Amino acid sequence: MSAAPVSHAQHPPHGHPDNTSASTQAVDKPSTASHPPAEKPDPTTSTASNGAQGGLAAAYASGPAELSRLKVNLRGALRQFPDFPSPGILFEDIMPIFANHKTFTDLVRALELQVAAAFDTTVGEKSDIDVVVGLESRGFLFGPTLALRLGAGFVPVRKQGKLPGKCVTEGYQKEYGTDHFQVQEDAIKPGQKVIIVDDIIATGGSAAAAGSLVRKLAGDLKGFLFMMELDFLQGRAKLDAPVHTLLSSQEESLEASKEKLPLGQTKESASDVKPVADAGGAQAEQKP
Amino acid sequence: MSAAPVSHAQHPPHGHPDNTSASTQAVDKPSTASHPPAEKPDPTTSTASNGAQGGLAAAYASGPAELSRLKVNLRGALRQFPDFPSPGILFEDIMPIFANHKTFTDLVRALELQVAAAFDTTVGEKSDIDVVVGLESRGFLFGPTLALRLGAGFVPVRKQGKLPGKCVTEGYQKEYGTDHFQVQEDAIKPGQKVIIVDDIIATGGSAAAAGSLVRKLAGDLKGFLFMMELDFLQGRAKLDAPVHTLLSSQEESLEASKEKLPLGQTKESASDVKPVADAGGAQAEQKP
Repeated sequence: MSAAPVSHAQHPPHGHPDNTSASTQAVDKPSTASHPPAEKPDPTTSTASNGAQGGLAAAYASGPAELSRLKVNLRGALRQFPDFPSPGILFEDIMPIFANHKTFTDLVRALELQVAAAFDTTVGEKSDIDVVVGLESRGFLFGPTLALRLGAGFVPVRKQGKLPGKCVTEGYQKEYGTDHFQVQEDAIKPGQKVIIVDDIIATGGSAAAAGSLVRKLAGDLKGFLFMMELDFLQGRAKLDAPVHTLLSSQEESLEASKEKLPLGQTKESASDVKPVADAGGAQAEQKP
Repeated sequence: MSAAPVSHAQHPPHGHPDNTSASTQAVDKPSTASHPPAEKPDPTTSTASNGAQGGLAAAYASGPAELSRLKVNLRGALRQFPDFPSPGILFEDIMPIFANHKTFTDLVRALELQVAAAFDTTVGEKSDIDVVVGLESRGFLFGPTLALRLGAGFVPVRKQGKLPGKCVTEGYQKEYGTDHFQVQEDAIKPGQKVIIVDDIIATGGSAAAAGSLVRKLAGDLKGFLFMMELDFLQGRAKLDAPVHTLLSSQEESLEASKEKLPLGQTKESASDVKPVADAGGAQAEQKP
């Protein structure tokens, strides 16, 4: 996908407890084809319509340029709040995207195009995705809408004790102790093609648990789709299906970035001159 | 709206803590024009296309029959779980509606028609609703999709501490103690036309707090829309804007109903022969 200034956003609080340790886990991140080092952008991403788009579904022919344009709009709608919810965290606020009908429409269209490209399927209702699984609670903000657009159903993954009837359960590590996710046992039929969505991937613990739940129900897990990613937490290493991210990746923690920046220069202003490749698209890594 | 068998569903657990006292608060409910006693259905509701629809927007001309049909489909997709999450609670599971693309599509269309009828506006993107406010977290399951369909934005009401930036805050009573809801201060502009949505209205505490937040931001609160209502908790008495409910109302608690039913007859089988009027539609009461 196209090169674009990264917004050095990080890390929301909330429902996904695996997010809460972002400020303490900054690590060096190895660069990959889809994640070149920031100082050396991937040359193939320098134009919006490059040759790397071969092999996508025909219906996606006009997709790359449209998707690039939409991503610019969406990035422009994000807001950053440093030191929220706790010191050292740069919080990326996605809510302005939803509050505005135009940007919300752009988001859903972008997700639809991203799914078509990432999972090599038809754009829209004729996609072969059967089920979109969304994580409580920010995965609910766009997961159901995306499901409708893909001709799929929506299945929520919720904290233990909130769903009635027979459920499958999976634990995941939080900063302090273990939490549990559940999905209803009959919500996914064996062999159904499933994607899992959430707003941000941080350490990947909750997403990994959701993936495990889908496999317990014999769902055909095609992969994960996030709006954003905290690269420096290496969450995608925990996931055993393809991982795609709509907007920019973040390579390092707020703390690490503060150490490197000249006094008075904010992370946001620095990001204007440091383009990195987008983590999304068909080239995203697949972990074993 | 049309007469239909009520599903004597009650009462979900979860995010809305005001739901947790349903089993202990059964009260006698006075009947009203829109809530006739179950044994004496409102005669005006006996056909789908009756004269009571006058005054609705022209675009809604074919709406009542379509809406009635959709509601039948949606009721058929609901599942009941007695004594979940605790004894005395009949839990109404809405998740099967979302898991199936067809019923989820029906839900969104029904909500769109209901909004047009209830708030006397145009169906779809040309509605004059500016903002749909949804309550965490089941209000997120359909609120954003509805907002898109209405040409509106979506604004979440979340538990205190989850939203960054300046927020307005409102407390509400839970079974044990007080909880707080927040909305971002700039999420709603003065004068914007707002509807508040959630899956179920129980005691009404959380919905009332959401209404108060909208008014604090000088939003023009047009009313509330719920998928279902627990009539016996009289939650709508707490709300100072019109209240509309898509599916059936529930007049009494599981405990109260068990006392009245012959042994071996379940609430569900009894409901098949006891039609009541729908709580939704333009006649729904407006509380001062």
